[in-house]
Amino acid sequence: MGSPFRFTVRDAARDGNCAARLGVCETPHGVIQTPAFMPVGTQGSVKAALHRDVIDAGAEIILGNTYHLFLRPGDELIARRGGLHRFIGWDRPILTDSGGFQVFSLASRCVITEDGAEFQSHIDGARHHFTPERTVDVQARLGSDIAMVFDQCIAFPASRDDAADAMRRSVRWAARCRTRLHELRSNPGPVLVSNPGQAQFGIVQGGAFADLRDESVDATVAIGFEGYAIGGLSVGEPIDVMYDIVGRTASRLPANQPRYLMGAGTPEDLVHCVARGVDLFDCVLPTRNARNGQLFTSQGRLNIKNAKYAEDDQPVDPACRCYTCRHHSRAYLRHLHLAGEMAGGALNTLHNLAFYLDTMRRIREAITFGTFDTFRQEFLRSVSRLPVDS
Amino acid sequence: MGSPFRFTVRDAARDGNCAARLGVCETPHGVIQTPAFMPVGTQGSVKAALHRDVIDAGAEIILGNTYHLFLRPGDELIARRGGLHRFIGWDRPILTDSGGFQVFSLASRCVITEDGAEFQSHIDGARHHFTPERTVDVQARLGSDIAMVFDQCIAFPASRDDAADAMRRSVRWAARCRTRLHELRSNPGPVLVSNPGQAQFGIVQGGAFADLRDESVDATVAIGFEGYAIGGLSVGEPIDVMYDIVGRTASRLPANQPRYLMGAGTPEDLVHCVARGVDLFDCVLPTRNARNGQLFTSQGRLNIKNAKYAEDDQPVDPACRCYTCRHHSRAYLRHLHLAGEMAGGALNTLHNLAFYLDTMRRIREAITFGTFDTFRQEFLRSVSRLPVDS
Repeated sequence: MGSPFRFTVRDAARDGNCAARLGVCETPHGVIQTPAFMPVGTQGSVKAALHRDVIDAGAEIILGNTYHLFLRPGDELIARRGGLHRFIGWDRPILTDSGGFQVFSLASRCVITEDGAEFQSHIDGARHHFTPERTVDVQARLGSDIAMVFDQCIAFPASRDDAADAMRRSVRWAARCRTRLHELRSNPGPVLVSNPGQAQFGIVQGGAFADLRDESVDATVAIGFEGYAIGGLSVGEPIDVMYDIVGRTASRLPANQPRYLMGAGTPEDLVHCVARGVDLFDCVLPTRNARNGQLFTSQGRLNIKNAKYAEDDQPVDPACRCYTCRHHSRAYLRHLHLAGEMAGGALNTLHNLAFYLDTMRRIREAITFGTFDTFRQEFLRSVSRLPVDS
Repeated sequence: MGSPFRFTVRDAARDGNCAARLGVCETPHGVIQTPAFMPVGTQGSVKAALHRDVIDAGAEIILGNTYHLFLRPGDELIARRGGLHRFIGWDRPILTDSGGFQVFSLASRCVITEDGAEFQSHIDGARHHFTPERTVDVQARLGSDIAMVFDQCIAFPASRDDAADAMRRSVRWAARCRTRLHELRSNPGPVLVSNPGQAQFGIVQGGAFADLRDESVDATVAIGFEGYAIGGLSVGEPIDVMYDIVGRTASRLPANQPRYLMGAGTPEDLVHCVARGVDLFDCVLPTRNARNGQLFTSQGRLNIKNAKYAEDDQPVDPACRCYTCRHHSRAYLRHLHLAGEMAGGALNTLHNLAFYLDTMRRIREAITFGTFDTFRQEFLRSVSRLPVDS
């Protein structure tokens, strides 16, 4: 049995010299219009938001983290509940990462061998072992609509040898992931597969080395996946390096399949990388920064803790139509933040998600109208207007 | 200028031998149907809930805490923002307490004299001084629809002498509060009065001593307020003592004015005290317990942390129509709680508020239909069905 996953490019930017494109992803749980931003729901919840608010903000897909859900409440429990969608009460598309980045960045004492990764849980210190095959099984139990292959992540900067080794191991692991998925599709055996229509994306690695990225693209595409991600970026490299790698990699990936830039980025990154041909994004910035009081607006970022907002009756962003901006002032949000009220984090999160998702809507609209290049220039000018808050 | 505050008794329980009654409070920010429960919005936010959710749950009025708002962000700042309603973006009725209970229970080194109370802020240790007149001014700046007089609270158990002294001082303070309010109504001077139509309630004290309570009722009613509260209960006294004091006190208060039982209570308390003639309630139980994982249901209370809910696909309360019960399972709520996700506290809060406010709606309906006594018996039987969670 194959996947009902389909990606269709509907339109492409007609102005400027850019690779922006409009598409539609069909998944077992519905359609995603691309370019799309996926709010991060690490533990089955977009932090400080209810599903209703995530939908109101315009999200068509959220991301879940395999590493976290495997540790707690456990993929077997989730499979017994009917899969992640039913367990968390979210009936739209979900993408799960493979845990590769988390065992590298969050777990302690992670040891990589050709077989896989041994690591200690950041929750209770228990030892666990992820192989490529196991992360496929875990994600099959979770039943996400898009599963990611298990890859080896490295720190930036990395030597060329380290980047090459990790990239080639990631390719070998990707092949094992694909083989395991085919096995599960034909005969799941004892694995409770929650979503038989799950798609699987490969991940391009290779650090900041253009030729290694090219090699990774060729080898990963040769294995064959429903879509491709660009991994190992937004980890501290200079922004121009990131944009160059994204542009080069995206242009070499199959034109008729979706391209997903993992873990990026700022609102500016979204626009720059859509221009380079990226279709899908995820990032913790809008939600994490919201809880820390940093708000994204059409004029730039503001830090709600700043004393200058103590008596500011304006909404966060006068141009925004989110619940927070329609009902509350900067002065009130500052008070909630300083008073430690949960509503502060929740209202900030609603706003930041709305800003990110509205930016994606505006991007899609601009591509449709053939005005993406104009939009891009105006957007980048606009979001740098506010003075940077101390 | 007087207050546009009006209270009208619309109906009374016709079955059983009880004092339950149905009423309507008209305030400058709209109508409250009584008996009513007021969610507690200490710092201008009902903890873990957005205003929208508080309204969806059925709240017609919320409570704000004078002590907290005076300390942060400050009553002067709130007055400059146009008052508490505009500052927090809540356009329905608000009641503010006077801070009497908080300087006694929350502040440190509280020293009571005939003039008032000196205390240290629980936030930064700064020394402050509340007089009866000052708490009236602070509440005038906040602009709540119902302000409370400043009273002296005592611990339970208290000696008869201590209870008598505190009660008589509270009566003298109540008279000073009323005088100050009349001054502000005729000539606010430099005080920014945010809500000229604000009503003021007196508070009956006297501990567990029936004759002191009687004396307090007589003296407080003699001063004359728009409504009367029963204070100093739900502080550790046996439940029968509380019900007896409430019944005796309520029956002696003016029949044509609202009666407010401060700080109570459990769902059972609400029903028992409505039966004794109480019109208004406030309590932190539904919101605080929600954040700790205790959920109120039609069958009793459950603790969502309990292992037995790990794979329980039922909603918290199959009889409940709140957002939480319509969308999420006990298993998911348990996961969110254990994972420390803010959405857990938020979803639990939505449910508990809905349960409390729905209980009030059912009480009002039963009085209307002449079936309050039947409802009371059935309700009290029903909420004791669940085994007590460990």
